[in-house]
Amino acid sequence: MLETNIEPNTIETPIEDLRVQLKRLKSDLVELAEFGKSEEDAGIYRMAFTEADWQSRQWLRCKMQDLGMAVRIDGAGNVIGHWPPDMDGASVIMGSHTDSVPCGGHLDGSLGVMTALECARVLIESETRPSRPIEVISFSDEEGRFGGMFGSQAFIGAITPETIASATDLQGVRLGDAMKARGLDPLEALEARRLAESIYAYLELHIEQGPVLDEMHQQVGVVDEITGLFRWSGKLKGKPNHAGTTPMSLRQDAFLGLAEFANEIPRLLEENGSDRSRATIGNVSLSPGSANTVPGLAEFSLDVRDTNEEKLQELTQAFRKALSAIARRRSLMFEFEEISRIDPVSCEPKLVEVIRNEAERLNFSYEVMPSGAAHDAQMVACSGAPVAMIFVPSKNGQSHSPAEWTAWQDIEIGANLMLHSILKLVEPE
Amino acid sequence: MLETNIEPNTIETPIEDLRVQLKRLKSDLVELAEFGKSEEDAGIYRMAFTEADWQSRQWLRCKMQDLGMAVRIDGAGNVIGHWPPDMDGASVIMGSHTDSVPCGGHLDGSLGVMTALECARVLIESETRPSRPIEVISFSDEEGRFGGMFGSQAFIGAITPETIASATDLQGVRLGDAMKARGLDPLEALEARRLAESIYAYLELHIEQGPVLDEMHQQVGVVDEITGLFRWSGKLKGKPNHAGTTPMSLRQDAFLGLAEFANEIPRLLEENGSDRSRATIGNVSLSPGSANTVPGLAEFSLDVRDTNEEKLQELTQAFRKALSAIARRRSLMFEFEEISRIDPVSCEPKLVEVIRNEAERLNFSYEVMPSGAAHDAQMVACSGAPVAMIFVPSKNGQSHSPAEWTAWQDIEIGANLMLHSILKLVEPE
Repeated sequence: MLETNIEPNTIETPIEDLRVQLKRLKSDLVELAEFGKSEEDAGIYRMAFTEADWQSRQWLRCKMQDLGMAVRIDGAGNVIGHWPPDMDGASVIMGSHTDSVPCGGHLDGSLGVMTALECARVLIESETRPSRPIEVISFSDEEGRFGGMFGSQAFIGAITPETIASATDLQGVRLGDAMKARGLDPLEALEARRLAESIYAYLELHIEQGPVLDEMHQQVGVVDEITGLFRWSGKLKGKPNHAGTTPMSLRQDAFLGLAEFANEIPRLLEENGSDRSRATIGNVSLSPGSANTVPGLAEFSLDVRDTNEEKLQELTQAFRKALSAIARRRSLMFEFEEISRIDPVSCEPKLVEVIRNEAERLNFSYEVMPSGAAHDAQMVACSGAPVAMIFVPSKNGQSHSPAEWTAWQDIEIGANLMLHSILKLVEPE
Repeated sequence: MLETNIEPNTIETPIEDLRVQLKRLKSDLVELAEFGKSEEDAGIYRMAFTEADWQSRQWLRCKMQDLGMAVRIDGAGNVIGHWPPDMDGASVIMGSHTDSVPCGGHLDGSLGVMTALECARVLIESETRPSRPIEVISFSDEEGRFGGMFGSQAFIGAITPETIASATDLQGVRLGDAMKARGLDPLEALEARRLAESIYAYLELHIEQGPVLDEMHQQVGVVDEITGLFRWSGKLKGKPNHAGTTPMSLRQDAFLGLAEFANEIPRLLEENGSDRSRATIGNVSLSPGSANTVPGLAEFSLDVRDTNEEKLQELTQAFRKALSAIARRRSLMFEFEEISRIDPVSCEPKLVEVIRNEAERLNFSYEVMPSGAAHDAQMVACSGAPVAMIFVPSKNGQSHSPAEWTAWQDIEIGANLMLHSILKLVEPE
């Protein structure tokens, strides 16, 4: 395990011995956490295009400028620092997002952006002339105030004037109006597109947001695949009969149908999925919903994920058949709407290899693992650009809450792995 | 099957040939249905101690007075007609309730009270001098604006000053205030108590509120037992993890625990209950309740019924053990609160015999069956008085809604069975 280095790097430090300075990284994170922090619940409220989000982006822009980077905020609100300012060609990009969910934690995407900033700082201070430019990026609206991954979608050219015109937040505020309030011309978001050829590699460090590294006592995660998913909004319809007067044999109990379906989840995953499959019924609503009435309607959400596209297709079929058979047997009607589908993506094997090699050289314990959550990296990968991700452990798997926590020494390990991965990618050939 | 008799009874009609007049019964029901009827949804809003309920009680009082009965409204709001006015001794009581649930149907308890009124009318018109008095009663607040069966509880002396002081409706209106608004002194409800010795028999006709008679094409139900129940408010607690990042093996999914429990219901009933057992999970609420979060908390209602006290005890143990085992195996916490327990009661076998004999003599097809719902008869039985019930078929088992329906010819059959049952009970010995 790496010892925390107290001595700052100097320009004489050999590249392979460069280290991030945890103190600076920590100080940046603490400063950033002040934007949108609630006194009341200690949560961070830095939703996209709010005052807090926008101020933090100006703060980040200044931080990048202080390092001598060429900085701009593109039409989608993405903050991008480029170094060396005068160097052209495909870049090694490090990024994530600094917006938060309502009542979020201090890490999430922010850790990835602050780590990227510290890695750039170490590289710049070391006076190493990289063989290709590096960029640090904070994407806008990853968390989905207006639907999710707006900044990275704009970055790969996946948005349209229609997207911009129709997006609203849960309060009905239009994306266009929220952008105008920050001085942005919404249609300029269409200009944020970057061609895949301009991206040599995209690397994102993120908290795991799951319990695997914490449970396994591994220091760092090397992501090889990012999960895809389908999400259903489903309904089972029976008859809302009296709970006392209706014999069990004459019931069409919508909830018992749903319970049977839920009970089949392990079998469905074992038969049709992989050990990377997940299925979750996260929300259930019964009607009429009174204790003395047999549920006539069960509405539910189903979220199914896998890192393999074929498996995901098989799971779609298997879940549909299971639900259909249960409904038929129990004289229920069923319907579902696919409200979301995201294709899984693979990280670039060569990038994964670079990260693994550096983890081994630095003697970090690591786990090659999938990302079960969606990230900006997934969007960037859709453009055809090579991507990879580094995870740091999430204490008890917590995220999106003030309870989100990663030990500082784990953060330092993750940041040093990012530093040396990008150093490898920009070393003169 | 009985033909609808067009010719009215005369004083020469032999007792065994007396018949109710459906036209009058129908007219009474239609008149009563005007009190509290909504123009908007065609539902009846005659909740206890509302203006509509109170006006309907004054109307009923007049109807009884017109028949020459001695009428009073007791301290609990029960309307009671007694005939012959000058006769003392234990009475044969026919009753039910005329209050409704919000958006109720036109039958429910009202049919029982209007049938009782028509039976009294036929008896009085026939100029038969009964061997013991008859009474017609409409109990107050059976449906539970202030908790349920208030009138019949007061009738058997099961309420206390504490009950009266603490009862409120869902809007926070106090029972005492609602009673005062109708000119009643709430504490007078304590004076409504009748000794069991004053009740020779209590007979209640009610719509079945279930699908059994309709499904079996039986004309009438002869109730032998009234179900008891226990009701739980239960919780299963797990961990609210991310649906994408948490492997299935590391989850503590509260909903999957509940689904397993629900799936065991048939087995639990088969092993520990009877063919009269019912179990219903009518309400479920998951937290956090978002599609991409494993449910950390599942709250649910459980309603279990049987007509046998011992079976109900066995079911209580069995459900508790099943839930406990599932919780243990899945690393969930569980807790439940028994929010209601009602003991089952048996109808008086001699009364059941009288009703069966009359059904056979009148050539009605009938089913001896339990009541799965609670009724005023259950409360009266708790005083030790002998009770019995007659059910008429509910179309599709519907009740407590404007869709509630019983064919008029089935109503006529039920009413004639009530008539001849009470004629048997009051014939000179």
